[in-house]
Amino acid sequence: MRLHRSCFKLPACFLFLDQGELVMELTADQKREIDELTATTYMTKRPTVPALEEILYKPFPVLNHGFIRVVDYMGDDSAIVQAARVSYGRGTKKTSQDKGLINYLMRHRHTSPFEMCEIKLHIKLPIFVARHWVRHRTASINEYSARYSILDREFYFPKFEDMAAQATENHQGRGETLSMEEAQQVFDILKADALKCYDDYEYMLNENPDGTRKDESRKGLARELARMNLPVSVYTQWYWKTDLHNLFHFLSLRAESHAQKEIRDYANIILDICRKWVPLATEAFEEHRLGGTHLSKKGLDAVRRMINGEKIDRESCGLMKGEWNELKTVLGIKE
Amino acid sequence: MRLHRSCFKLPACFLFLDQGELVMELTADQKREIDELTATTYMTKRPTVPALEEILYKPFPVLNHGFIRVVDYMGDDSAIVQAARVSYGRGTKKTSQDKGLINYLMRHRHTSPFEMCEIKLHIKLPIFVARHWVRHRTASINEYSARYSILDREFYFPKFEDMAAQATENHQGRGETLSMEEAQQVFDILKADALKCYDDYEYMLNENPDGTRKDESRKGLARELARMNLPVSVYTQWYWKTDLHNLFHFLSLRAESHAQKEIRDYANIILDICRKWVPLATEAFEEHRLGGTHLSKKGLDAVRRMINGEKIDRESCGLMKGEWNELKTVLGIKE
Amino acid sequence: MRLHRSCFKLPACFLFLDQGELVMELTADQKREIDELTATTYMTKRPTVPALEEILYKPFPVLNHGFIRVVDYMGDDSAIVQAARVSYGRGTKKTSQDKGLINYLMRHRHTSPFEMCEIKLHIKLPIFVARHWVRHRTASINEYSARYSILDREFYFPKFEDMAAQATENHQGRGETLSMEEAQQVFDILKADALKCYDDYEYMLNENPDGTRKDESRKGLARELARMNLPVSVYTQWYWKTDLHNLFHFLSLRAESHAQKEIRDYANIILDICRKWVPLATEAFEEHRLGGTHLSKKGLDAVRRMINGEKIDRESCGLMKGEWNELKTVLGIKE
Amino acid sequence: MRLHRSCFKLPACFLFLDQGELVMELTADQKREIDELTATTYMTKRPTVPALEEILYKPFPVLNHGFIRVVDYMGDDSAIVQAARVSYGRGTKKTSQDKGLINYLMRHRHTSPFEMCEIKLHIKLPIFVARHWVRHRTASINEYSARYSILDREFYFPKFEDMAAQATENHQGRGETLSMEEAQQVFDILKADALKCYDDYEYMLNENPDGTRKDESRKGLARELARMNLPVSVYTQWYWKTDLHNLFHFLSLRAESHAQKEIRDYANIILDICRKWVPLATEAFEEHRLGGTHLSKKGLDAVRRMINGEKIDRESCGLMKGEWNELKTVLGIKE
Repeated sequence: MRLHRSCFKLPACFLFLDQGELVMELTADQKREIDELTATTYMTKRPTVPALEEILYKPFPVLNHGFIRVVDYMGDDSAIVQAARVSYGRGTKKTSQDKGLINYLMRHRHTSPFEMCEIKLHIKLPIFVARHWVRHRTASINEYSARYSILDREFYFPKFEDMAAQATENHQGRGETLSMEEAQQVFDILKADALKCYDDYEYMLNENPDGTRKDESRKGLARELARMNLPVSVYTQWYWKTDLHNLFHFLSLRAESHAQKEIRDYANIILDICRKWVPLATEAFEEHRLGGTHLSKKGLDAVRRMINGEKIDRESCGLMKGEWNELKTVLGIKE
Repeated sequence: MRLHRSCFKLPACFLFLDQGELVMELTADQKREIDELTATTYMTKRPTVPALEEILYKPFPVLNHGFIRVVDYMGDDSAIVQAARVSYGRGTKKTSQDKGLINYLMRHRHTSPFEMCEIKLHIKLPIFVARHWVRHRTASINEYSARYSILDREFYFPKFEDMAAQATENHQGRGETLSMEEAQQVFDILKADALKCYDDYEYMLNENPDGTRKDESRKGLARELARMNLPVSVYTQWYWKTDLHNLFHFLSLRAESHAQKEIRDYANIILDICRKWVPLATEAFEEHRLGGTHLSKKGLDAVRRMINGEKIDRESCGLMKGEWNELKTVLGIKE
Repeated sequence: MRLHRSCFKLPACFLFLDQGELVMELTADQKREIDELTATTYMTKRPTVPALEEILYKPFPVLNHGFIRVVDYMGDDSAIVQAARVSYGRGTKKTSQDKGLINYLMRHRHTSPFEMCEIKLHIKLPIFVARHWVRHRTASINEYSARYSILDREFYFPKFEDMAAQATENHQGRGETLSMEEAQQVFDILKADALKCYDDYEYMLNENPDGTRKDESRKGLARELARMNLPVSVYTQWYWKTDLHNLFHFLSLRAESHAQKEIRDYANIILDICRKWVPLATEAFEEHRLGGTHLSKKGLDAVRRMINGEKIDRESCGLMKGEWNELKTVLGIKE
Repeated sequence: MRLHRSCFKLPACFLFLDQGELVMELTADQKREIDELTATTYMTKRPTVPALEEILYKPFPVLNHGFIRVVDYMGDDSAIVQAARVSYGRGTKKTSQDKGLINYLMRHRHTSPFEMCEIKLHIKLPIFVARHWVRHRTASINEYSARYSILDREFYFPKFEDMAAQATENHQGRGETLSMEEAQQVFDILKADALKCYDDYEYMLNENPDGTRKDESRKGLARELARMNLPVSVYTQWYWKTDLHNLFHFLSLRAESHAQKEIRDYANIILDICRKWVPLATEAFEEHRLGGTHLSKKGLDAVRRMINGEKIDRESCGLMKGEWNELKTVLGIKE
């Protein structure tokens, strides 16, 4: 069962088990703020997507403490059509025509009309995931500042089934899953180290909730310094805003099998959100980008020969071993 | 009387005189499309700005044939506050607190929260203005394609009072206004050349509105080639989408006195739109950026000495002539 | 014979015929400046590419008056390897290993190491080509200013064999070539209009080379206004600087058959320059990007079935007519 | 004594004391690689800066284990002039004219010519500094991957004199320095936690240098998961390439007093490098940006009144308390 498939059925404030421990839910204040937002409705003349309005502001859980919330959006499928036509009106003629045009744009990499849709997400994520994420430069970010504020006592710990050894083939990913015993041991280590570091973070800060010193005999360490004791598994959060073209680019890299599992979980939730927001564009994206493949010049030549009924081998195609294997896999060719 | 001051009172479809000629209005189809958009209202939970909703989709005239229409927007003043606080809710506490925070952000160049607001404009503008505009790279554009479509027979001709000789001081701008006679002569030249070029464009295209050939004995020239006969005063149009931070940067350069008058006219309309859309942010922008000034190290030193009652001159300040004159102007110092 | 194939054999200062007219060559001053640059050599510890040094600063002709000059560059093939390995040294192990790694990076779209090479070009090009070019936003540009300076009397006129009617299939490109008679007529129109507009530009400017007025009874029109009379076939020039990843992206769109012929001519020269500058990266680019193809999910499925010896048709593949035709073309299937 | 002032005198491979401990130097392999690079010289026709060539490839120490190495560069002061003039030659007329033009460009925020210079740095830095750094989006980065490779056992620990309590005024920076006793205690905590986390990282990895398992009874945890146990004080390294305009923007924010001290140390080294690389541009930057100030509209009005000899107070200027205090500070006004 993949979490993101069912995520839209979860209540706004969720609880679930984290390796046997109850995960902290949103605070009462946070719940109240979200409730206020979802309860108030305005009139607008802007393009509006009812399916996205329904889930606006609601947190979808990712990993053990993370979430994604859609906070705002601009445009819909017809905004892509409208921009492509530089139209005076909504751009839409008939849905079937819109669909055809969107497919054409996606297929021929006319990417600029997809930039005309924009989405803003509120995301809670571990720092090591945030460090991958931020490499996507064409986006706007406001991150929770650990220079101003104190970070929550929340860390990512993988589920047992996600703990695996280094892959032997691919050199960067995961291979065999650990035994229950080794997974338990790893979990115990990660947890003990994280909590010890956090306790020391708090000790060094020496602050009461009202800002006064816990222990008057110590000055306490500035937040910007104390935070350096925290592991990259600690959660941070940010507002992240990007356009649909760059979002699809993000998804093509991060919803893909080579991406680290943890950021893939976020990408899959976002893909679900896109299916609600811009169904035609997302269908075209899944058809032409996610589900398709790229053939090199030699790969294309090999395919042409195979279609002509020729028997081919690696040498006659002039392919290196790695590319040859990738080609066989993508074409579903056994031995 | 500045046009952009009163632009919000104009009807959606406008007529006005272009050096004695009646300017063509929007077509019936375009009017109908715009009317449809403004007549339909949706429910949304997103932040909504009533003052901007009121002018949504309506064209505001710029120059003789150009316009700016707000086509979509995301966020409001409180979205800036919300992102700055990485808040769960709307971010707003009290308006006075929001105002203070927005001012602080603007003053200290914390620019990222301003990226959280986004606007999409439909703009009709002469090509030579478009060529300045496109240098602002952090924006999304979809332009009307002269490879697919035929350009309208519309050209920018300056009003008589805007026709001036080359500036003698600043080397790039305008100086003395032309006499009525010379202005009339220039106008006649610009118009005759533009219309001749357009007539030849149409002749070379050799197309009827239904795509058939006007003159069956000629093949006609491809649009992508025929358009090269048109002067840069011809109008094009595009969808342009950017965030508030980059929009303010655009305005700081293009609503400024060194910008060419024609793009300044567009910038002033956009500034008016910003006042409706994000009044607190725009006030802070006008206070801290547009209305302020930058002092160099030597300039600051000169100011400190003047405040202390010292008499200063250019040599003792170590300033070059150009910078000295600029400093005197900005400080309102006469000889 | 394609011009760009032989362009590296041309002398630095070139003459050739423009539909029977002699094209103006570089001025004596420009030639002297270029000669000075190519005559002086410095010592450096930076990665250096002898094949590129050889052509540094020399103009390669494009279209009738345009050119491309390499003005500076940073990095070589080994700089890509060095960055991918975050190496302390040059990064290179053996050429064969470097080649393998560069191919791997290109194939798996690890694009960031290609950003580590940078090139700066001086380009002379018609305004309508410049308007396509500038849409590539991740680049630095300094353009010759028609607000400060007076544009040269140089226009792009297509060769007879490049004049064609609108395509009937593709809707944006060129179809059938014009007859000699029609081409001659088009050429005469383009030339007459361009020269008339330029004469009037000069008349309105009313400037002698030394800046004084030609005719003392007229003030003359400011340059920023007078230039609006010039057609988009007039030449401008700029410095353009970008990194190799973005250059390859530019080439993948502009050296491609859907791009307008005129910008394709520039792209092909740049592709030749890349072959000299970064031969391994360019080979990988031509193998994996330029010469390859993208298959959609349905297209890939169709290919798999064909390889298995199945007979397929459009309906059973679920493809629309346009995509089906494109697929047959790319796979070299007749029927 | 500021480190960056004397950094250019240090040997390429440095040792110094880290709170009493000897810091590990570069490995023999790394030293050899750097020595090879600095020993080899090539001929080039490109603009070359002897003062920068002298320090090319050499590591300048920052913090306890970090460094900055210039790995490549493109352009010099005259490249800025050349681009501003869209010149055929080097652009330089006389040094005094170049200096005047560069000052003019900086003063009037004509930023594009500064984009024509490019620099590539190899930087070793703690993750929490890297997280600030990466927010500057207009740059190219290749970072050492903790998914492929194992991170070094190196952590940032502040010097005793840099350990301070949270600021009471500014809310994000540092205030009073800690006592020796408290600093020692903080240092002991940071060190113990970091080393414990690293020992557990190594334990979970379960890898010998040759890739075999240390303990055959455990599979070991994948690198991409094990690294999540490391604190943000651990060192990473990357290649970072940007242009001079964006570098100056980086410096204006990160060499500034509100930036965290640790990234400021890096910024100051880079500022020193700029002084060697592009002395005229850096002088203009320090005069007009770093050393200058910005006045708001009300601030400018207040200055004008003071220069006229008026006595002013906060209320009559219409300034909020925060801005009033900032204004007095910048103008050097006591009470």
